[in-house]
Amino acid sequence: MTRQAHLARDTAVRPVGFGRFAGTVTDGWLIAPGGAANGGYLMTMAARAMQAVVPQPDPVTVTAHFLRPAPLGEVLIATEVVRTGRRHSTVQAAVTDPGGTEEYVRLLGAFGDLASAEGPTRVDRHPPDLPPIEECVDTWEAERRLREQNPERRQPPPMFDRLDLRFPADVAGWAIGQPLGRGEMKSYSRLAGDESMDSFGLLMLADALPPAVFNTGEMRGWVPTVELTVQIRKRPAPGWLRTVFRTEALTRGYLEEDGEIWDEDGDLVALSRQLALAARSRRGG
Amino acid sequence: MTRQAHLARDTAVRPVGFGRFAGTVTDGWLIAPGGAANGGYLMTMAARAMQAVVPQPDPVTVTAHFLRPAPLGEVLIATEVVRTGRRHSTVQAAVTDPGGTEEYVRLLGAFGDLASAEGPTRVDRHPPDLPPIEECVDTWEAERRLREQNPERRQPPPMFDRLDLRFPADVAGWAIGQPLGRGEMKSYSRLAGDESMDSFGLLMLADALPPAVFNTGEMRGWVPTVELTVQIRKRPAPGWLRTVFRTEALTRGYLEEDGEIWDEDGDLVALSRQLALAARSRRGG
Repeated sequence: MTRQAHLARDTAVRPVGFGRFAGTVTDGWLIAPGGAANGGYLMTMAARAMQAVVPQPDPVTVTAHFLRPAPLGEVLIATEVVRTGRRHSTVQAAVTDPGGTEEYVRLLGAFGDLASAEGPTRVDRHPPDLPPIEECVDTWEAERRLREQNPERRQPPPMFDRLDLRFPADVAGWAIGQPLGRGEMKSYSRLAGDESMDSFGLLMLADALPPAVFNTGEMRGWVPTVELTVQIRKRPAPGWLRTVFRTEALTRGYLEEDGEIWDEDGDLVALSRQLALAARSRRGG
Repeated sequence: MTRQAHLARDTAVRPVGFGRFAGTVTDGWLIAPGGAANGGYLMTMAARAMQAVVPQPDPVTVTAHFLRPAPLGEVLIATEVVRTGRRHSTVQAAVTDPGGTEEYVRLLGAFGDLASAEGPTRVDRHPPDLPPIEECVDTWEAERRLREQNPERRQPPPMFDRLDLRFPADVAGWAIGQPLGRGEMKSYSRLAGDESMDSFGLLMLADALPPAVFNTGEMRGWVPTVELTVQIRKRPAPGWLRTVFRTEALTRGYLEEDGEIWDEDGDLVALSRQLALAARSRRGG
């Protein structure tokens, strides 16, 4: 397998002024061919700019409001330090076109040093129950074989090439019209080419799987995110991550998706929650 | 009982300039005698100012980062409209001293019209299991009787007077050294004097109960909130609300508290999550 995620490269930012950074939205992280860039990908990019203006190295909690799709190409990330503290610092950011006219994402986050965190620990959550990885569906491989058989087959999301996801067979059933019957999506996850995952990459991964609501059987289609908040608890250990996302309250078109990401040490590395819309059209606004 | 919550009065804001509002932090919502004002109370106040600059009437998701305690007296709430949309609008706000020098809370929220929301509904969550209300502990009454017996007894939090909370006996056990053994806090809840609760008041209620982590038995003391996000799904029906808060991942001093608020119609009206610290001192920063 020669796929590579290139997440670090594709989310790199460079300073272009006081508290201002440029990044490039690449075509590797689109959620559909010709579609919008993944929200979590934009969040990882923005968080790198936010971190660059404070002393602490890790995102601890980051909230993003998604305003409109970001087109491919250069974006401006304008940061504002809200408060610099000894243990945590708080930063706001706006991701816009290079001229600063159209805003795509507004963010607010707190940064800390996860390597030096200390205090009481008690975890009553458990990593998602997954079958052995060799029994899981490698959806990328399955897609590749299906396209070999049928070159007319609709292309999968470009982002799909950047991730290595292995789903339990029943969890992947929604894609062939056999949803689980509950709002759950879970998998082994890592970056393609086994690129190393840092605390910033977890922001992307918190928004990378197909919507858990697809497994309820209640709906398919566009599920635009209004707001996504990710708590990062630990820099992930190398290797496979276990991810699980659940939607348990779809109310009059609003839904939450709650996620957990666990690493190979068995530690909870991130908790996420988003508010999304069961939209009738592609426009969420 | 002549207690009154006065939440509407104590969170009212008045315009003082373009996008700028004044509010008054009263002594009714302190989390300890002489202590800090409750974060959720400040959030309700700020959200009223944020709503005043957009067409939509309800908070749909609001995130607050708590930077430092707000003293009693007047505060300035400076808003910035990030995006005005047909269905949702996004607003940022800073709560500061009247001169705009010291910032206490930074917020980012989306507003919509919950009365006109429509779309698919499927709720796999359930309201918290609570015994009949007459079997629950009215902690305010219990406190009052204890103070009659012992006038030297330490005063409860002033905020306690503004709320009418009824806890299952086992859930209230933490207060007498008998924690449940799991991170859960649940109760019937309403504003004192049965003041009506609107979509804004839910922001306060999402931060009003004692920390769920107290019921693990792992820790007591100051649990400063770094960030609180509340999703509001419905304007609550009149009457008792059922509230439940859970902490299931305390990792090296960081903890989440996930909340649900249900109304008398049996509808989920709010989902909340905060990131808080198991702090050794009173300063969270």
